[in-house]
Amino acid sequence: MTTAQRTGPDTMQELTGQMIIAGDHVTGTGDAIHAVNPATDERLQPAYAHGTAADVARATAAATEAFAVYRNTSSSDRATFLTTIADNLDAAVDALVDRATAESGLPVPRITGEVGRTSGQLRLFASVLREGSWHGARIDPAQPDRTPMPRADIRQRKIALGPVAVFGASNFPLAFSVAGGDTASALAAGCPVVVKAHDAHPGTSELVGRAITAAIASTGMPAGTFSLLYGSGPELGIALVTDPNIKAVGFTGSRSGGTALVRAAASRPEPIPVYAEMSSINPVYPLPGVLAAKAADLGKAFVGSLTMGSGQFCTNPGLVIAVDSPDLDTFVDAAANAVRETTPTPMLTPTIAASYADGVSTFDGAAQAVARGAESTAPNACRAALFTTTADDFLASETLQQEIFGSSSLVVKCRDQEQVQEVTAKLEGQLTATIHADDTDHIAAAELLQLLELKAGRILFNGWPTGVEVGHAMVHGGPYPATSDSRTTSVGSLAIERFLRPVAYQDVPAALLPTPVADGNPEQIWRRIDGALSRD
Amino acid sequence: MTTAQRTGPDTMQELTGQMIIAGDHVTGTGDAIHAVNPATDERLQPAYAHGTAADVARATAAATEAFAVYRNTSSSDRATFLTTIADNLDAAVDALVDRATAESGLPVPRITGEVGRTSGQLRLFASVLREGSWHGARIDPAQPDRTPMPRADIRQRKIALGPVAVFGASNFPLAFSVAGGDTASALAAGCPVVVKAHDAHPGTSELVGRAITAAIASTGMPAGTFSLLYGSGPELGIALVTDPNIKAVGFTGSRSGGTALVRAAASRPEPIPVYAEMSSINPVYPLPGVLAAKAADLGKAFVGSLTMGSGQFCTNPGLVIAVDSPDLDTFVDAAANAVRETTPTPMLTPTIAASYADGVSTFDGAAQAVARGAESTAPNACRAALFTTTADDFLASETLQQEIFGSSSLVVKCRDQEQVQEVTAKLEGQLTATIHADDTDHIAAAELLQLLELKAGRILFNGWPTGVEVGHAMVHGGPYPATSDSRTTSVGSLAIERFLRPVAYQDVPAALLPTPVADGNPEQIWRRIDGALSRD
Repeated sequence: MTTAQRTGPDTMQELTGQMIIAGDHVTGTGDAIHAVNPATDERLQPAYAHGTAADVARATAAATEAFAVYRNTSSSDRATFLTTIADNLDAAVDALVDRATAESGLPVPRITGEVGRTSGQLRLFASVLREGSWHGARIDPAQPDRTPMPRADIRQRKIALGPVAVFGASNFPLAFSVAGGDTASALAAGCPVVVKAHDAHPGTSELVGRAITAAIASTGMPAGTFSLLYGSGPELGIALVTDPNIKAVGFTGSRSGGTALVRAAASRPEPIPVYAEMSSINPVYPLPGVLAAKAADLGKAFVGSLTMGSGQFCTNPGLVIAVDSPDLDTFVDAAANAVRETTPTPMLTPTIAASYADGVSTFDGAAQAVARGAESTAPNACRAALFTTTADDFLASETLQQEIFGSSSLVVKCRDQEQVQEVTAKLEGQLTATIHADDTDHIAAAELLQLLELKAGRILFNGWPTGVEVGHAMVHGGPYPATSDSRTTSVGSLAIERFLRPVAYQDVPAALLPTPVADGNPEQIWRRIDGALSRD
Repeated sequence: MTTAQRTGPDTMQELTGQMIIAGDHVTGTGDAIHAVNPATDERLQPAYAHGTAADVARATAAATEAFAVYRNTSSSDRATFLTTIADNLDAAVDALVDRATAESGLPVPRITGEVGRTSGQLRLFASVLREGSWHGARIDPAQPDRTPMPRADIRQRKIALGPVAVFGASNFPLAFSVAGGDTASALAAGCPVVVKAHDAHPGTSELVGRAITAAIASTGMPAGTFSLLYGSGPELGIALVTDPNIKAVGFTGSRSGGTALVRAAASRPEPIPVYAEMSSINPVYPLPGVLAAKAADLGKAFVGSLTMGSGQFCTNPGLVIAVDSPDLDTFVDAAANAVRETTPTPMLTPTIAASYADGVSTFDGAAQAVARGAESTAPNACRAALFTTTADDFLASETLQQEIFGSSSLVVKCRDQEQVQEVTAKLEGQLTATIHADDTDHIAAAELLQLLELKAGRILFNGWPTGVEVGHAMVHGGPYPATSDSRTTSVGSLAIERFLRPVAYQDVPAALLPTPVADGNPEQIWRRIDGALSRD
């Protein structure tokens, strides 16, 4: 714990350009990078020097050392730790907003909200810890008189997997980054975390890392519970995922990046789970009844979701699938007008902006270009784009089935509802699917719902997929390639399950039993006794 | 459902040598194999011709077709289906015992018990379905007045992954085979199952397949809910795992076999989870206090566990780790005497018997051979073997750290309890770890327990790891390579989780909501409302 008190600068606001390894500030010895303000192309100070494999080894060894203590901290103490991080983030909101808006080009209200979401996530997991069901406590009491064989006393609880590697995402510099959902759920589970910061927002990452390190010091957690590294994905990232001390990985990013981590983790002598949230085009289904009632309103509202945050949401609606009709034309016309009226806003990085432009240009030949946002000479600006195509052309084109990260969407016109189903059946796994329907559409909606359950992690009606509520019922996940593990979610309280495994205790003496499965239920948690839930 | 009624022979007892594909009896066109009675080397009739990739495609297509209906059957209807299978197995117990004892060389009481365990597992999952918590139902009600943004109504439940491939294990021709734990939990989850029977017990497999097919017909389930194929692992097995219709895999068997399936599944265009239970040497720790009190009794009892079923349990105690002492010598002497008194019993197959003999011979040079079971001229007999070595030699030898499948065990003598911990820290993941301790051992036991939680799925005190209780609290799993996914168990009611994934429903109209998350809780199940468990 002494190392945690060696943190350098006193204030949260000073940026040092240093990594944080188990409480120590460490200057990297690799390539130095600078964040760039994408709205101005201005280079931001200070420089952040990348770490090396030696830094990875130091951080993961410290995490393993910390794990022995941290995994045995009480739910209550970990809850206090998480809320302290949340408090520290809320207290640093001004500095976070200043730096994160500069590093991301995202507007102040968005980042202000994201700070709140990030601290809210930490508090959600604190409440999960206090409630106690996360232990998964089960007791099958001994039956000494059972014939032909007596039954032993068997108890089960879930324990932390071990140190977790978390990769910060570019598009949520707070909520899916250093203290984002992956970190919050892993820390809640009892797993130390080693973060590889995203190069797009190193300053924000440092500020958040400082907030976590301060919480470690003030709540007496072991210093190695958290480290923050800078580095490239192919080098430092792969070194982290293949480090034997790391037992699970959380990632949000591109399909190629996620796939590389999954492969690296699977090829380890001891393979480990990777929770990669990767790729989704989030189909939207306006059904005939609702189109007849309000096609123009819907088209306009759709573009609001499409262009929010320069379209840089994992749940951005990149596909509209509907039966061709004059009402659909009205929808497309209204959407096209709305797209033309949009003012381009900066994307997160020059690389992302260039990829977006490339993606749109590949669609230009393959589909019918209907509308673009206004021209802009601002750097890294995202000009919204709307395309249409036929179902037949869509099914025949691999290009058109790809995700374009940004405010581009494709309307697929189908002959009839049967072809809507046919196109849907061919889609890859998705994070979300959205149905717009009124009462007259319920037969088609019910049929679609059946299919979409197998394709998406979240199905929503009469709304827009952007904006992911953080709660107990949320699923931010879905079949491959939306994620690498459809059995999980990266948002919401169920996310803690990713970092736990069950252990059974058979005839363990009462004095040695872990508290969650101890006699008398000392933590007063819900437990299954012979399969029946009980708090006794 | 008509195809399910086309099953050929009327009685459960006739063996046809045919596969069962969605209710149809199909004769394979590949190599024909015969079961062999390992106790006599007698070839058993009839021949079982292996299937081909075309049979795999037919079975998996039927499974996908069935899935659309089967996944939507009610918990109650699936519970009835599972209990009907259980009833059919219990009714066929005589035929099953006749055939399975002949095919496995295992004694009648063991197989009789295994039939009961298998039907008991099916009934356990029926009770899980009726209880309803498996749905994982969660509701976060709408908050239309929340500021700054209203909250949508979000509900979550778990749904079936899709058709599951199950690989029958050699060592439990019933409980880990055609209608074993993997099949029972997958069917409970709502997943159709395609089984690849183990070549060691095709007749038992056919009988059990018939019991399932009859239950499908009598409970009106879709015919494609179950198929039974014969074939080789490298050919038919890999075709099955790489078939796009298959969405998860259950396997119990060797490390090489499991690893091959994991690799094949990971290299699919859409990777899928593989639950492979593979390799474990199940360390036993007699601590100094208990050794002082009853070393000789313990040594004798240990050999009882070691030689049960010719040592062919996944949880067979292949390793004893203890501090060297005269008491440990007493333990070893008593165990050695008990080993010498054992009469060799047949192993499951000639191949397994040959592998066992090879394994023991590789230990002969690397460790000190202490005792062997009596010589035997009976075919495929397992001569028990006991070895000792020092901790230093054990740590230096890759050979000695390997599993020998059968009644062979190695006692590792350590300088002190610290070296016991050191050896343990180097072990791979295990299904079980066993501590023998009395009150004077509790300090060492507590320290060991901390380490063993990270190494094993089940930790037991003062008993033996063989014999896995089927209940709600059991974990038959553990870190790699004990299994390919330490977050799961293949025995006990938690096993159903392997075949489920969560889906969120946002603002879905009441009329379209799935029953488990419908308003008014029509199934009266436990649900989480804003995170709090409730049956309202």
